[in-house]
Amino acid sequence: MSRIIKFAKAGGPEVLEFIETPVPAPGPHEVRIRVKAIGINRAESMWRNDEYVGRVTFPAGLGYEAAGIVDAVGEAVANVAVGDVVSTIPAFSFYQYYTYGEVVLVPDHAVVKHPATLSFVEAASIWMMFITAYGALIVDAQVKPGDFVIIPAASSSVGLAAIQIANHAGAIPIALTRTSVKKQRLHEAGAPHVIATREQDMVAEVMRITNGDGARIAFDPVGGNDFPKLVSALANLGTIYIYGALNEGATPLPVLEMILKMPTVKGYSLRRVMGDGAHRAEAVNYVVKGLASGALKPVIDRIFTFDEMVDVHRYLESGDQFGKIVVTV
Amino acid sequence: MSRIIKFAKAGGPEVLEFIETPVPAPGPHEVRIRVKAIGINRAESMWRNDEYVGRVTFPAGLGYEAAGIVDAVGEAVANVAVGDVVSTIPAFSFYQYYTYGEVVLVPDHAVVKHPATLSFVEAASIWMMFITAYGALIVDAQVKPGDFVIIPAASSSVGLAAIQIANHAGAIPIALTRTSVKKQRLHEAGAPHVIATREQDMVAEVMRITNGDGARIAFDPVGGNDFPKLVSALANLGTIYIYGALNEGATPLPVLEMILKMPTVKGYSLRRVMGDGAHRAEAVNYVVKGLASGALKPVIDRIFTFDEMVDVHRYLESGDQFGKIVVTV
Repeated sequence: MSRIIKFAKAGGPEVLEFIETPVPAPGPHEVRIRVKAIGINRAESMWRNDEYVGRVTFPAGLGYEAAGIVDAVGEAVANVAVGDVVSTIPAFSFYQYYTYGEVVLVPDHAVVKHPATLSFVEAASIWMMFITAYGALIVDAQVKPGDFVIIPAASSSVGLAAIQIANHAGAIPIALTRTSVKKQRLHEAGAPHVIATREQDMVAEVMRITNGDGARIAFDPVGGNDFPKLVSALANLGTIYIYGALNEGATPLPVLEMILKMPTVKGYSLRRVMGDGAHRAEAVNYVVKGLASGALKPVIDRIFTFDEMVDVHRYLESGDQFGKIVVTV
Repeated sequence: MSRIIKFAKAGGPEVLEFIETPVPAPGPHEVRIRVKAIGINRAESMWRNDEYVGRVTFPAGLGYEAAGIVDAVGEAVANVAVGDVVSTIPAFSFYQYYTYGEVVLVPDHAVVKHPATLSFVEAASIWMMFITAYGALIVDAQVKPGDFVIIPAASSSVGLAAIQIANHAGAIPIALTRTSVKKQRLHEAGAPHVIATREQDMVAEVMRITNGDGARIAFDPVGGNDFPKLVSALANLGTIYIYGALNEGATPLPVLEMILKMPTVKGYSLRRVMGDGAHRAEAVNYVVKGLASGALKPVIDRIFTFDEMVDVHRYLESGDQFGKIVVTV
């Protein structure tokens, strides 16, 4: 038997239920993993609230990331074998797979052998954050030395990954955070510029930092009423990637300023680079090399146990974290 | 002396004033034109209301398009000579130049000799409409055979130009119009598909027309509350160009659908292709060849006289026109 977590209706963290279930047999292209650690993502709380990109079909599992040991493989699986130490990249849909469980099934294309230097906790924390930022900043935006990159919600795991990746590419990250509480930690995490948006005039600060030019890129998981300020802080012909809706209010498009500056606003998700094998392999290779060189480093905020998952979701939604929340199993 | 039109405060059409002014001498790179016809654009009514992309400095002139005869040239002007029959492309700013006048000065880079087959009225009508649509659809979007292109406000001059240009590229225009009043005329103007947005379910119609795929491109001068429907009618990874704000209400960005479909929303103006000489020459060449082959044709809605300019602006704002309004001088 395996304990897994599902929810049978949308709602707060308390809708999560622990369920004893028989250990499933893997299909031809499936890998069964005995889970040691689970990486937690904001996507899971949106999914649990049924406010994610697609509507939930109940009962639903959740979770994109896990690290553990291969326990069984389907007959067509060639990339891993029983006993391998592996982790999952988020290249599947919650409609089909989940990682919140003691033993889980995932598709073989989403299973990778992570660098041996990483602990299970670290291995469960890296893929979503680094691949999400990599796909936007490296694959799509092709950031280059000297580019300014505005990073709202910079203390989130993806925000911290974006700081590292921008620096790695020679670009200049400008981290946004609501108050000055996390400012020092963001500097230490690699951001040469940090703006506390509730305490400072963000647009004026960006203009000061960029000598009046504005930033070429913004990488925004927030949206909402402050979105037009991001356009104002952008350079002419700049690009904003919007990849989340942390602010649940309306996100107005400042049309006249759009016509004046001719920026690009792109909806973005990591499906951009998870859709085919070549893109997935390049993404994994980029992260593995970055970790090996020391340019990329996991940032773990706090470690919980599997039993505490309801509290984990409460903490996730507090917005108090700095980096990745990981659960050990 | 020359009669010109300026306005000393923002407001309705009645703020336009006729002023007798001495005929100015051209600067080194300026061309003086004895105007025969003026093309009218929505931009001018926005500018008059001080709701255009930059704030007005009063008193202000207005007008991007004119056709006429060269009357004098600056000492450095090489591309045209006194007596030439010319028209203006909209490659200047209202802060510096205007075309609402009997005799006007414009920069030499904005003066072209139009095809001899065109009347003054036609020559004053073509550049803004065709170059605006060309820059987005041909230069930026590179529309190709089989692409579906949604064209809101299709009866506007730029909308009609977009229909012609999409057809010319082998793409399939889908014209949007508010009611069925102009439907037949839009079919006759080259749109194989016309949707009356107040009478039909636009998204469902686009999905029907595109076999459920959605359109690759939308070319939108409207914005406003219906903007999310354009995103819904788009194919995955499609692109919306927003180049006007005909709807003055807020334009919400549908963030979750943006993340799901990963579309691109680009602010666009014809400065995209008017900024340098090479782009300008390519644009003019494209339009001249299109006119010569018959693929592109002027669409004149109604011709007024210069004295009627206040009425012209009232009519412009009625939204009743089908194609270009031109004023003869």
